[in-house]
Amino acid sequence: MVNVAVLGYGTVGSGVVEVIRTNQEVINQRVGETLNLKYVLDLRDFPGDPVQEIITHDFEEIVQDKEVDIVVEVMGGIEPAYTFVKRSLEAGKSVATSNKALVAKHGAELLKIAKEKNVNFLFEASVGGGIPILRPLHSSLTGDVVEEITGILNGTTNYMLTKMFYEGANYDEVLKEAQDNGYAERNPEADVEGYDACRKIAILASIISGKQVDFEDIYCEGITKITADDMKYAKEMGMTIKLLATCKREGDKICAMVSPCLLHKSHPLFNIDGVFNSIFVHGNMLGDAMFYGSGAGKLPTASAVVGDIVEEAKNPGRNLGVMWSEEKLELEGKEELKRRFFVRMKGSPEVVKGKLAADFGEIEFVNIEGMQGEFGFVTALMPEGEYEKKAVAYQSEIISMIRVEK
Amino acid sequence: MVNVAVLGYGTVGSGVVEVIRTNQEVINQRVGETLNLKYVLDLRDFPGDPVQEIITHDFEEIVQDKEVDIVVEVMGGIEPAYTFVKRSLEAGKSVATSNKALVAKHGAELLKIAKEKNVNFLFEASVGGGIPILRPLHSSLTGDVVEEITGILNGTTNYMLTKMFYEGANYDEVLKEAQDNGYAERNPEADVEGYDACRKIAILASIISGKQVDFEDIYCEGITKITADDMKYAKEMGMTIKLLATCKREGDKICAMVSPCLLHKSHPLFNIDGVFNSIFVHGNMLGDAMFYGSGAGKLPTASAVVGDIVEEAKNPGRNLGVMWSEEKLELEGKEELKRRFFVRMKGSPEVVKGKLAADFGEIEFVNIEGMQGEFGFVTALMPEGEYEKKAVAYQSEIISMIRVEK
Repeated sequence: MVNVAVLGYGTVGSGVVEVIRTNQEVINQRVGETLNLKYVLDLRDFPGDPVQEIITHDFEEIVQDKEVDIVVEVMGGIEPAYTFVKRSLEAGKSVATSNKALVAKHGAELLKIAKEKNVNFLFEASVGGGIPILRPLHSSLTGDVVEEITGILNGTTNYMLTKMFYEGANYDEVLKEAQDNGYAERNPEADVEGYDACRKIAILASIISGKQVDFEDIYCEGITKITADDMKYAKEMGMTIKLLATCKREGDKICAMVSPCLLHKSHPLFNIDGVFNSIFVHGNMLGDAMFYGSGAGKLPTASAVVGDIVEEAKNPGRNLGVMWSEEKLELEGKEELKRRFFVRMKGSPEVVKGKLAADFGEIEFVNIEGMQGEFGFVTALMPEGEYEKKAVAYQSEIISMIRVEK
Repeated sequence: MVNVAVLGYGTVGSGVVEVIRTNQEVINQRVGETLNLKYVLDLRDFPGDPVQEIITHDFEEIVQDKEVDIVVEVMGGIEPAYTFVKRSLEAGKSVATSNKALVAKHGAELLKIAKEKNVNFLFEASVGGGIPILRPLHSSLTGDVVEEITGILNGTTNYMLTKMFYEGANYDEVLKEAQDNGYAERNPEADVEGYDACRKIAILASIISGKQVDFEDIYCEGITKITADDMKYAKEMGMTIKLLATCKREGDKICAMVSPCLLHKSHPLFNIDGVFNSIFVHGNMLGDAMFYGSGAGKLPTASAVVGDIVEEAKNPGRNLGVMWSEEKLELEGKEELKRRFFVRMKGSPEVVKGKLAADFGEIEFVNIEGMQGEFGFVTALMPEGEYEKKAVAYQSEIISMIRVEK
């Protein structure tokens, strides 16, 4: 028998209990013995819910119970999650978590403790919800050097941008609708400013580099400035706008960034609509691959957590060796990253054509019928630092700039 | 040091050597020791190629060398691959293979020998080329009951159908073009008749059921009868036609099938174009997920093989417990499977409207401008057996039938 304690009976916690109870039989087969829910930790009581029988309000009961093999942290936030996870690992228990904030901040340290104690710290659900991505990176793409990971990692903003694309709606309208439908929080900052996606790409960057990538070091730009007019230009170019979290390797250097990007319809991520997430991976041998699924939601997230629990239950006393050291990775600045830039500018292209070509290389103009007093263009491929330097001279004319993803 | 012998220096074999040599350093880090190519078995010599130094023409040299830990079978075909793999496992060596014919036929038996000998038999590359799908099913989706796997598992036919969709070309033209471009064999039967996809879905069905699914039991229909006119109807309905290999679970029953299907543009597989493969998975907890990538090609396939080698090198003396017994699974007949059917019929809808509705339920007519003397319609949801029974009365009027995937 493998005993499990779940910390937190909120959305994901109750999902974990539901997944285990629903699929108990096949899960036991896969583990090779019975997976037993021994405790659920929560401040509240749940009278009438069968879980009430195993509710405890005291973490000490769990951490001091030698029979508990696996602790599932699904409370969210840094504290007391961090303390509980650390103490569980130190007590020789494996831990599975869905907590991206915790993993982004303390992942390396917790993995180190897990290794020392010969147990495991797994966190598949912290990136991409139900989508299997961390374990495939760790145990399938092991013949490759991963040169790029680019993901649509936030369902809320993808839902909003999808609405803006198909319905021509403006940012404020779709935000209100997303809030009314429960897809966005009343305070939507973590989603719309890109902070959520930023923590997830920090975790992915740490996994593929094997070093600590701090999310504070990652340039992060949200979707709050994207307008219905921007989307019109995108459509005219056969593109859409997506909030992309990306991590690219060039030689020894790694650059990471979160920002809205123009994406051509030939790109595998172009068609990822609504609240779904998707992660594009380019390996130096594999080439392009993509992983798609539900990036959030009670049962999909819980499915990933239970996948981790089963993996831990199948590997007692055996650390699976996820490589992510505490050594800090110095990210390359975004100034070095070469790409093309889409710029909306006041005035008329005829007047400044020559000057623009001299500054931004072979440019392509984009015209939208009925768009008065402005025009759009795409620059040649250039490092972002060079674009910024050149753009200074046009400060008062530039309406907006959106990065172009290949 | 972990010693590897590669059987066969053809496309995939030379790819395996290239992947290991190119990424030797990171591969060694992941294994925790040096992965050493000790032998390459081939009937030929390769003077001038560095591989010549480790070429052997004699399998006995490999199987009797106690230093060889892992044997990589990339020869293809059933014999001598089967004998070599079996003898390698019996000699206590782990085996990685890309050989779908071998795995579909002898997978259960070879897994059993691997388990008895406490080694591993892995075959990620045999389905979906470079796409990680078997290991995610085995070690990530372990909290789920997989209720459906539907894949575009053959790049050649997908390339052809994509051309037919975008260019309105006819079957014969695109086959010739695919042959001229090297995407299709001179004898294209294995691809266009669906036999290749059929072996792959047999492997997937075996993995998710844990029992032996014989590919001979799977209804298999290729794309040879699909015409430019069929594709016109598909477009009119907001759909496309794809060769789908599918395995669905309904209660205790599992049904598998390979056939061209109409797919609506809201389906995740709709946008999978060209030679790419993609595998859609529905778990009872996870919901929808999809895995996308290169289904063939030297380096993507080799990348998956090397992923298996690394997994085996990291797990010496430890069977990973892939569940696939020799017990045969009796598949449900396709007659029981409920879906809708698209039918092209001679004549005019007005005349037979009432009769068709009485036989096929609430039908939807599809009209293509300029299509003379025929019309199309989609039946209500019904078991295929019932459709077949009803269709008998219209035998001389029905031009063609294509299954509709949700």
